[in-house]
Amino acid sequence: MSVSINKKLTEIKVLRDPVHEYIRISDEVIWNLIDTKEFQRLRRIHQLGGTYQVYHGAEHSRFSHSLGVYEISRRMVEEVKGLKENLTVFEQISLKCAALLHDVGHGPFSHAFESVTNTNHEIMSIEIILGETQINQVLKSYDPKLPSAVASIINHQHPKKLLTQLVSAQMDADRMDYLLRDSFFTGVSYGHFDLERVLRTLLIHNDRVVVKESGINAVEDYIMARYQMYWQVYYHPVSRSFEIMLTNMFRAIKDVYQVDPEHIKLLTPFFIPFINGKVVSVEDHLNLDEPTCYYGFKTLSKNPKYKTLQDLARRLLDRDLFKYVDYDETIKEKLEKLLLQQGYDSKYYLGSDSMRQRPYIPYRLNNEDNLISILLRDGTVAEITKVSPIVEAMADAKLKEDNKIFSIKEIFDEL
Amino acid sequence: MSVSINKKLTEIKVLRDPVHEYIRISDEVIWNLIDTKEFQRLRRIHQLGGTYQVYHGAEHSRFSHSLGVYEISRRMVEEVKGLKENLTVFEQISLKCAALLHDVGHGPFSHAFESVTNTNHEIMSIEIILGETQINQVLKSYDPKLPSAVASIINHQHPKKLLTQLVSAQMDADRMDYLLRDSFFTGVSYGHFDLERVLRTLLIHNDRVVVKESGINAVEDYIMARYQMYWQVYYHPVSRSFEIMLTNMFRAIKDVYQVDPEHIKLLTPFFIPFINGKVVSVEDHLNLDEPTCYYGFKTLSKNPKYKTLQDLARRLLDRDLFKYVDYDETIKEKLEKLLLQQGYDSKYYLGSDSMRQRPYIPYRLNNEDNLISILLRDGTVAEITKVSPIVEAMADAKLKEDNKIFSIKEIFDEL
Amino acid sequence: MSVSINKKLTEIKVLRDPVHEYIRISDEVIWNLIDTKEFQRLRRIHQLGGTYQVYHGAEHSRFSHSLGVYEISRRMVEEVKGLKENLTVFEQISLKCAALLHDVGHGPFSHAFESVTNTNHEIMSIEIILGETQINQVLKSYDPKLPSAVASIINHQHPKKLLTQLVSAQMDADRMDYLLRDSFFTGVSYGHFDLERVLRTLLIHNDRVVVKESGINAVEDYIMARYQMYWQVYYHPVSRSFEIMLTNMFRAIKDVYQVDPEHIKLLTPFFIPFINGKVVSVEDHLNLDEPTCYYGFKTLSKNPKYKTLQDLARRLLDRDLFKYVDYDETIKEKLEKLLLQQGYDSKYYLGSDSMRQRPYIPYRLNNEDNLISILLRDGTVAEITKVSPIVEAMADAKLKEDNKIFSIKEIFDEL
Amino acid sequence: MSVSINKKLTEIKVLRDPVHEYIRISDEVIWNLIDTKEFQRLRRIHQLGGTYQVYHGAEHSRFSHSLGVYEISRRMVEEVKGLKENLTVFEQISLKCAALLHDVGHGPFSHAFESVTNTNHEIMSIEIILGETQINQVLKSYDPKLPSAVASIINHQHPKKLLTQLVSAQMDADRMDYLLRDSFFTGVSYGHFDLERVLRTLLIHNDRVVVKESGINAVEDYIMARYQMYWQVYYHPVSRSFEIMLTNMFRAIKDVYQVDPEHIKLLTPFFIPFINGKVVSVEDHLNLDEPTCYYGFKTLSKNPKYKTLQDLARRLLDRDLFKYVDYDETIKEKLEKLLLQQGYDSKYYLGSDSMRQRPYIPYRLNNEDNLISILLRDGTVAEITKVSPIVEAMADAKLKEDNKIFSIKEIFDEL
Repeated sequence: MSVSINKKLTEIKVLRDPVHEYIRISDEVIWNLIDTKEFQRLRRIHQLGGTYQVYHGAEHSRFSHSLGVYEISRRMVEEVKGLKENLTVFEQISLKCAALLHDVGHGPFSHAFESVTNTNHEIMSIEIILGETQINQVLKSYDPKLPSAVASIINHQHPKKLLTQLVSAQMDADRMDYLLRDSFFTGVSYGHFDLERVLRTLLIHNDRVVVKESGINAVEDYIMARYQMYWQVYYHPVSRSFEIMLTNMFRAIKDVYQVDPEHIKLLTPFFIPFINGKVVSVEDHLNLDEPTCYYGFKTLSKNPKYKTLQDLARRLLDRDLFKYVDYDETIKEKLEKLLLQQGYDSKYYLGSDSMRQRPYIPYRLNNEDNLISILLRDGTVAEITKVSPIVEAMADAKLKEDNKIFSIKEIFDEL
Repeated sequence: MSVSINKKLTEIKVLRDPVHEYIRISDEVIWNLIDTKEFQRLRRIHQLGGTYQVYHGAEHSRFSHSLGVYEISRRMVEEVKGLKENLTVFEQISLKCAALLHDVGHGPFSHAFESVTNTNHEIMSIEIILGETQINQVLKSYDPKLPSAVASIINHQHPKKLLTQLVSAQMDADRMDYLLRDSFFTGVSYGHFDLERVLRTLLIHNDRVVVKESGINAVEDYIMARYQMYWQVYYHPVSRSFEIMLTNMFRAIKDVYQVDPEHIKLLTPFFIPFINGKVVSVEDHLNLDEPTCYYGFKTLSKNPKYKTLQDLARRLLDRDLFKYVDYDETIKEKLEKLLLQQGYDSKYYLGSDSMRQRPYIPYRLNNEDNLISILLRDGTVAEITKVSPIVEAMADAKLKEDNKIFSIKEIFDEL
Repeated sequence: MSVSINKKLTEIKVLRDPVHEYIRISDEVIWNLIDTKEFQRLRRIHQLGGTYQVYHGAEHSRFSHSLGVYEISRRMVEEVKGLKENLTVFEQISLKCAALLHDVGHGPFSHAFESVTNTNHEIMSIEIILGETQINQVLKSYDPKLPSAVASIINHQHPKKLLTQLVSAQMDADRMDYLLRDSFFTGVSYGHFDLERVLRTLLIHNDRVVVKESGINAVEDYIMARYQMYWQVYYHPVSRSFEIMLTNMFRAIKDVYQVDPEHIKLLTPFFIPFINGKVVSVEDHLNLDEPTCYYGFKTLSKNPKYKTLQDLARRLLDRDLFKYVDYDETIKEKLEKLLLQQGYDSKYYLGSDSMRQRPYIPYRLNNEDNLISILLRDGTVAEITKVSPIVEAMADAKLKEDNKIFSIKEIFDEL
Repeated sequence: MSVSINKKLTEIKVLRDPVHEYIRISDEVIWNLIDTKEFQRLRRIHQLGGTYQVYHGAEHSRFSHSLGVYEISRRMVEEVKGLKENLTVFEQISLKCAALLHDVGHGPFSHAFESVTNTNHEIMSIEIILGETQINQVLKSYDPKLPSAVASIINHQHPKKLLTQLVSAQMDADRMDYLLRDSFFTGVSYGHFDLERVLRTLLIHNDRVVVKESGINAVEDYIMARYQMYWQVYYHPVSRSFEIMLTNMFRAIKDVYQVDPEHIKLLTPFFIPFINGKVVSVEDHLNLDEPTCYYGFKTLSKNPKYKTLQDLARRLLDRDLFKYVDYDETIKEKLEKLLLQQGYDSKYYLGSDSMRQRPYIPYRLNNEDNLISILLRDGTVAEITKVSPIVEAMADAKLKEDNKIFSIKEIFDEL
C-alpha cells in the first residue's frame, strides 16, 4: 500500500546551500530520494567534468546541482503565478522529483565517455527511474504511477508540456541553477542574472510558461549570462583539452581491449561493460563513478605494457594537458607528420573540436516548445525577439565559432 | 612657492567605501581638495537627483561618486599597463584631480534645472576650478599650471587625448563608477560588470586606451550593464515624472518672477540669480544645493498667493507625483482639454519626454575618440563591433524608444 | 465607515531594497501609510545623522530604514513559528504598522537636537499617530482603534508584551534592520549576522519570543555584530565630534534667542518653537527636517552679527570638525585656558562625551522583558548567558569605555 | 646551475578564485611547483574530508586551499608593513613556497586515517619537500638550499620565527584562508572576517608579527569567526559520524589484514603499506588519494567474505551514517549490549568523541609564539587579552564541550 504522495516531513529539512542560501524540503518523497544510493552516487561526479582543471574552484558535484534544480522547481510551484492551480498534487510532486532526478543517469566525464561508448545519460536516467533501483522503490512506494510520470517529464513525453518546459527548455530550472552555480564556484563574474525577478515574472498562460512584459530585461540578462558562460567556462580551451584527452584515452582503452582483452580485464575491469559491444546494464552504469575512473587511470599509468595507455593516463592524472592552437589544415598536417616521426599515434595524440554558440535561437520549425514567450500588457503573447530589440539583435548576430586543434606540448614545440 | 605636486601624506588615508571597499589617498593634493568647501558641498546633492523617489536606496550623493571616480583613476594609473610610463608625474596628478573634480559644478537636480535656467554644470566645473575658490587655491599651491591642466582634461581640450579618454569616454572612470555605484544603492541586479578584469585588460597602445583581446567579454558585459541601467534606472518613468515636475516648478518660479519679482525675492531669493537673465556667478551657483531647494519648496508650499507654485511645491515634497502613459497625440489633447476645464495650466501640469538608447554606437563621423578599441593578438587594433558578434549585433539593434506623457492623477482619472 | 483592516492590494507591491532585496507590501493600509506626507518626510532625515561625515556611504534615510523594519516585521508574522496563530488579524496589522511608524517622530540630528530642546522623538511618534495627521487618518479609516493600538506597541503600553518585544527589545525588527542596513551603507565588514537563521529559530512560547537552541550561535553572532557596530560606527569619534558641534550650535542659537529674539526670527524662524519654552506642536515638529537645518546653517554662516553662530555654522557646512583626544582633566583645563586667551567661548567651542557599551546585559531587576531567552531541547527556557559560554563571558566582560574631549583644531595645535 | 630564485614569469599568471577573486603568480618557482604531480594530487583530496556529507557545498579540495594560502602569503609580503624589508629575497620566496606546500603531505581523510595508521601529514610534507619528488627538483633547481628552508618553515625549525608565525600561528595565512574558504563553500554565514583590514593592520615589530591597535576589532571578529566555524562546521556531529565510521573502517581493514593478509592484498592493496607495520614510503603515501579510497570501499562493499568490512564500506558509500546522542555511560552500555545481541562488533559499530574549543587561549608556558600581540599607540606591545575586554572575556569563558556517542540507526531505534 502506498504512502500518501503528499506526505510531509514532521519538520521541514533545510540544507545550507551557498547558491540558494537554503534548500528546503518538506515532501517526504524528496527526502527519501536523496537518501538513495543512486542519488548519493552523484556526489562522486563533478558537475563540470574536468573544468576544475581550469577554474580550480569548480569542484562541485552533480549532487549539489541536482539539489539546486529541485529547489528552483519547488520555488516555481510555490511562486510562479498560476502554476499550482494548473497542476494536481500528483503533478506537483512529479515535477519536483523530475527536477531532482533529471541528471541521475550521468556518468563520469559524460561528454567524452559517451562519444566513445554506446551510453547516453538521458536514457540511463529513465532506466534508473524505471528499473530495479532504490529510486524506483521510493517513487513506487508513494504511487505506482509515479516512476513513469517522472520519467515522462524527463524524456519530454509527458502529455502536459508545461511540466517538461519547467525542467528543460530555454529558461528552465536546470539551466537557471547551473548558470548560477557554475558561476559561483568558478568565481567568474558572468553568469549572474536575477533569479528572484525571473521567478516573479514567470506565469502560466494557456498552459504554457510565459514571462510578463515587466520581466523582459531579466530575460535579456539571462540570455547574456548564458552566452558568456558558454564562452568563458563551458567552451574554455583548457576544458576542451581535457575532454579530448579523455576521449582519446577511452578510445585507446577500447582499442587495446579488441586485441588484448585480458589486459583491460586485469587493470580496469569496470570499463569493460561499456566497450564490449553489449547492452550496458543499470548496475554496471551505476558502478562507474569518477573515483573509479581516476583509480583506473592510476592503475594504467603504472603498467608499461601499452605505452600510449600509460602515458595518457599519467598526463590526465598530473594535468599534463594537450596544448592547442586555432584550427588550421596546414598545422594539422604538420602535427600529424611530427607525431608520426616521433612515434606517437595521432589517433590518440591529436584532436580537434569546433564550438559555436548563438545567444538565442528564435522560432524555427521544430522548436516551438523551446522559445521564450512574453505576455504583453495588452494580453497578447509574443516571442521575445519581437519585443526586445537586444534579443532580436543577438539572435541575428553572426555565429561565433571557435575551432581548435590539440596535441602534446612536445610536438607543438617543434612546430 | 609651490609644494611639490607629488607630495605624499605621511600615512595613506583609507576611506571605507561600500562599492570599492576602500578609497586610498596618498597624494596630499587630493586630500586637501576633498577638504574644500566646494567639494564638501557635493554631499548635499544626490547623485541621481530624484531617483531615490523610485529606488529608495538611491540616496547617495555626488560626493561619494566623485570619490569613486577618483579611486578608479588612481587604480588606472597604478594598474593599467603602459599608463604610468606614458604620463609625467604632473599629468598623473592632473588626471586624478580631474577625476575627483569632474562633477564639482553640478547643482541640484541638474537636468531639470539646467533646462529652465541658463546654467551648465560642465562650464561651471571649469569656472570653479579656475575661479576664486578653495579648490583653485589648493591646486595652485601645488603648481600654478595645475588648475588649467585639470580644467582642460574635463572640458576635452587637453592635448593629450589619453587623459580625457580615461575620465570621459565609452569606458571611463566616471561611467565605471556610476554603473557600479548606482546599481549597488538602488539594489537592482543590473549594472554589474567585472571592474577588476576591465582594469587588467586595458592598456595604452599608441597613446590611446585599448582593451586586450582577452577582455572582450568583459567589455560586452559592461555594454550590456550600461544598457540595462539606462532602461531600468535612469529612464525609469517615475524618475522622469519627478524631473518633469521639477522642470515645471522651475518654469513656474521663473514666470512668477517676471510678473511679481518681490514674491520670489521674499520666499526663495536663492533662485533669482538663475532666472534674472544675468550671468550666474560661481558664488551664487555654489550657494544652491538640494537642502536649499527643498527649503524653497517648503516655503512655497505654505504661501497661497500663487496656487500653482504652492500646489507643485507640495506635490514635490510629499511625493504626490505625476502619473504617466505612453505618448499619444489624442491622449495629449484630451489631457489638455481636461486640464483647461478644471483650471490647471497645462504649461505646468503637463509634460512629455522621449527616451532612446542604443547599447553601443559604433564608428561615425566625429566620434573617433569615443569608440572602444581592441588590441588583437596579432597586434592590430580593431573597433569592438568588428570583433564581437554580440556588440556588433547590439550596435545594429533597433533603437529602443520610450515616449511618455505625464500629468496629475486627478486628470488621468477622468480620461 | 471603515475599510476592512485586512484589505489587500490588487497586486503585491514590491520595492527593490539593497539590504533585503525586496520590500513586499500586500496590505493596503501599509501602502497608504507610506504615501502620507509625514512618512515621506523621513526621506529628508538621515538614518545616522552626521555619520556620513565619517563613512561617506552612510547617506541613507530613516525612510529606508523604516521600510526595512516593516519588512522584517512582515516576515516575522509569516515565518516565526507560532506568531500568526497567537495574533488576531488586527494585531498582525497593528504590529506591521508599528514597525513601519516607530521612527516617524524623529527630527533632524535627534540626539544633539533633543539634548538642547525639550523634544523627544518617541513621544512625538505617538503624537503623530494619534494627532491630526494623514497617518492618523489612514489608520482610522481602517479601524478607529488602530491608531491607539499602534501607539501602544511603540510606547510599550500594549497589553500583549509580545508585540512590543518584536519591535523593540534585545532582538527586534528595528535593531535587526539597522545593523544590517548601517553595515551595508557604511561599507564596514561588521554588523552582519544571519537574519535568515534568526527568523527560522525564533518562535513563540508561552506568549513570549524565544530562540530555539539551534539558533544560539546565530544569536552569539548577532550580539558580536551589535557590539562591533557600536564601536566602529555609532561611537566613532568623528561622528561624535559632529554631534557635539551640533549640540553647541543649537545651544548658541538658544542663547542668542534669549538676548536677541529678532535675529533668530529673521534668520532661522523654524528653530524658534523648539527653544521658546513652549510646548512643541506636531506641525512645528514636522516642519523641521534636515534640509531646513542645513538651510538655517547656511543663512547663519553668512550673517556676521554673532561671530560664534556664523563660525560654527560654517564649520558644520564645510566639515571643518572639532578634533579630539582622550579625556583628561589637565588637557581640558589647558584647552579652556587657550580658548579664553584667543577669544573663543568654551561653552560653544569645547565638548566632551563618554561612551560605554556592553555586548550584552543579562538579567537585572527591571529588564525581564529585555532578555534573550532560549528554548532548550528539553522544553525548558533559559536566559542566553546560562547556555552560551561566549555570551556569558561577554556579559561579564570589563566595561569598554571611551571618553573624549573635543575642540577646534586651532586650539589643539597650540597644546 | 640554478635559475635565479627570483625569476619572474614573462606575464603574471592570474587564476580566478571564488574566495580571493584572483590568485596572482609572478614567481616562476611557484608556477612550476603548482605543475608538479605531487601538488596536482591535492586536487584529489577534499579540504574538509567528509564534511561535504553535511554541507553539500563543501566539495573543495586541498589544492584550492593551498593556492589560497599562497595568495595570502604573497599579499603579506607585499602589503604587511615592514615585512619585505625584514626578509631577504630568498626568505620571501621560501615563505611563499612554504605557504603553498604546507599541506602537501595530506592524505585522504587524514584525521581518521592517521589515528589508525602510523602516518603523520606534517612529517610527510617535509619528506615530500626533501625527498625524491618533482617538488624537490623544482625547489632545488632555483637554489639547493631552498628545500630545507621551506621545510624548516613548515616544521617550525626555521631560525627566523617570523616566517613560521606567518604560516602557522594564531593568525596565519593558513587559518585565514580556510576560515574564508570553508565558510564560502559550506554556505554558512559564519567565518567571515575582514581580511583586507587584518592585512592592513598587521606589521612587523622587533622581528615579530603584531597587530596595530586600530586592528583590534578585526582581530576580535576573526576570533569569533573561528570559534563559530569550529562549532558549526568542523565539529558538526554528522562530520564526526563520518570520521568515526572511517576510523572504524580502517581499523577493520587493519584487523582483517592480521588474520587474512591475502584478502586485503587482493581487494585493496594500496592500504597495505599503512598497516603492515613498516615505514611508509613517500611513494606509497602519494599513491593514496581519495578516489583510491572510494574505489577501495566499493571493492570491499561487493565482497561478502567479511560482513563488517562489506557493511561499513557500503554505509560509507551510500551515506548511511551512524546516528548519535550526547555521551552517557549508561547509554553506551546499553548500546554495547544491543550490538552484541544483534551480532555487531562494537569495536567497529560504536564510537565516541569529545570536542572542546576555546575562542582564544591566552599566555601560557610554551605558547609564547602563539599569541596575538597588539602594538599600542604608545609604542608598547600587549597581548590581545590585555587590551580587548571582549577577547579577555572569551579567553576566560567556560570551556564549551561536546561529547557524543555514535552507532548505527538500527541499534538506536531499539534503545
